[in-house]
Amino acid sequence: MPEDVVPEGEQAASGAGMAADIAEQPAGYARLLGEQAPAIAEVAAQIARRRPRFVLYTARGTSDHAALYAAYLTEIRLGIPSGLASPSAITVYGARPALDNSLVVGVSQSGGSPDLVEVLDVAREQGACTLAVCNNPNSPLADAAELVVDLAAGHERAVAATKTYTAELLALLMLVEGVRAGDGRLPAAERDALAALPGLAAALIEDPTAAQLAPRYRFANQLITTGRGYAYPTARETALKLMETSYLAALAFSGADLLHGPLALADPDVPVLALVGAGPAGESMRQVLARLGERRADVVTVGPAAVADSHIRTPAVDERHAPLLDILPLQQLALALALARGENPDAPRGLRKVTETR
Amino acid sequence: MPEDVVPEGEQAASGAGMAADIAEQPAGYARLLGEQAPAIAEVAAQIARRRPRFVLYTARGTSDHAALYAAYLTEIRLGIPSGLASPSAITVYGARPALDNSLVVGVSQSGGSPDLVEVLDVAREQGACTLAVCNNPNSPLADAAELVVDLAAGHERAVAATKTYTAELLALLMLVEGVRAGDGRLPAAERDALAALPGLAAALIEDPTAAQLAPRYRFANQLITTGRGYAYPTARETALKLMETSYLAALAFSGADLLHGPLALADPDVPVLALVGAGPAGESMRQVLARLGERRADVVTVGPAAVADSHIRTPAVDERHAPLLDILPLQQLALALALARGENPDAPRGLRKVTETR
Repeated sequence: MPEDVVPEGEQAASGAGMAADIAEQPAGYARLLGEQAPAIAEVAAQIARRRPRFVLYTARGTSDHAALYAAYLTEIRLGIPSGLASPSAITVYGARPALDNSLVVGVSQSGGSPDLVEVLDVAREQGACTLAVCNNPNSPLADAAELVVDLAAGHERAVAATKTYTAELLALLMLVEGVRAGDGRLPAAERDALAALPGLAAALIEDPTAAQLAPRYRFANQLITTGRGYAYPTARETALKLMETSYLAALAFSGADLLHGPLALADPDVPVLALVGAGPAGESMRQVLARLGERRADVVTVGPAAVADSHIRTPAVDERHAPLLDILPLQQLALALALARGENPDAPRGLRKVTETR
Repeated sequence: MPEDVVPEGEQAASGAGMAADIAEQPAGYARLLGEQAPAIAEVAAQIARRRPRFVLYTARGTSDHAALYAAYLTEIRLGIPSGLASPSAITVYGARPALDNSLVVGVSQSGGSPDLVEVLDVAREQGACTLAVCNNPNSPLADAAELVVDLAAGHERAVAATKTYTAELLALLMLVEGVRAGDGRLPAAERDALAALPGLAAALIEDPTAAQLAPRYRFANQLITTGRGYAYPTARETALKLMETSYLAALAFSGADLLHGPLALADPDVPVLALVGAGPAGESMRQVLARLGERRADVVTVGPAAVADSHIRTPAVDERHAPLLDILPLQQLALALALARGENPDAPRGLRKVTETR
């Protein structure tokens, strides 16, 4: 495993690093579904035997969005209550929650942030089963955890995470479905659906539509992203990518929360990217699109069906699998927009690859 | 209890409604600490007897920020794992998590949103103890719950919630501290600290400093709010108030998450409101302020000590109590800024007082 810290001065200019990271995602999916699958199944089987009563995820930044996806999966697919833990309750205020019969999962690209390590240390003392999902199996986070899943995504060149994010999504999905199966192994139907992923992802990365939208947002200062259910983490991650690479004030809302206040922001000058999947959450986004229409918002939809005049088409898969595909063109949009604005998406101002917070 | 829906055409112009709501908050605190206290203590005692193994909160918009505060309190003060439930897992995807020995709390100003009612219905079927914290004890949410806390905040005039938010904060704090005590009653030290609240709140509302800052943001398009721990809900609620009333793209981040990506946004043109309390979370904000300084961000601090050149002073209370005070000048800033921009904060465009989402 190459180290995750990009040495100073080694970043390629003109977004070549981020572009290469994005392009590697189909291979990353194939690796997790192939050579990494037995190790993930073994961890899933161990978790299934422990029968946790609830699952807490802890993460920062991009990884927090993968954790949010996993929390939805845990509640919906396993019927186990789940949530995101605020590290500060433990690291700043010294909370010591009773965690027997629970699972606490740290999700991190680098495995290097001290606050997540402390949360896993405390969780273990408090009786939790602990799991680290990270791209560095020799990291402090992996050392702190009882169980480890290696994302095996390889060295990430750009500061803005792309291939480690999608690797986190797929590894967490494989874990949850493995726990659901009981023996850790994916059922045939799930295995077949996921086997199509690398090919679908590769075709999507070839599609220039999203990058061609960049000029539309060349002079935008603000942008709203929105989605519901499994698509909400995609909305959050899209907003973060746009903030990190293009310095847009990108606001992510669940479709329902958007109607509870922030809708007032929407007007013809505030563009909206709306995720509209082929399933119940996509269906419930129709109410949101109607209200955005009343506000004459500039809406681009992302999903299998062209609901707005401007549209980024993604494959018609189960909403549960859509986050693994929908983010790909949105990463490309962030890359293209940063370049259109004359920014270097590989090395955003003010950021370091490994962020240490306590 | 007057109804919560503001009839069309009844809103006062020039922010008189929101100003009146803001001004009533000290009296709202006194009411909860006085005549409402026995009823809250009774509910807290019932929860203490049930000894929940975990607590899930469910809410939308402003109430979601009160729920977030309560989740911190639950973990830190009770040592019970806690989280915010996404209604869509249940309402959109039909999740049926196992909720025996758990407490599920719906927090809502109106008690009228169908998705929260459905979450409480399902939670009850799944074995949870259910509690509604709302400003209308005759609402569908209150009907759905086993236990009810009435905020007794009276009719809220403006669409943007202010006095119902702070009533939610205090009611949830009294509940948690009552559960911690075991018999539902606040210990003497806590009672004494809270008895000072109405007076401190009244003095703070008299202070013109925050409203005088409005011209600074007259032409801002974006703004970042940040805080950690107990102050993070205040950062979130401040951002929402500014979005609702002044249509600013206001981005809220925990101090730690800000360093994991969004810091790239900060430059001298993006103002920052930073909550810096008198305690461990405030202390940990020093790292964040230093990084913002490197980015030459325009920072206004809120808290007991003037850390930045521009500062909104709030009383030096325990960080656990600070959310009940710090939000008051920030509500006034939102009101003053909306007026400076020629907007009507009592009736933001595109919003209704009761939002129904499913």
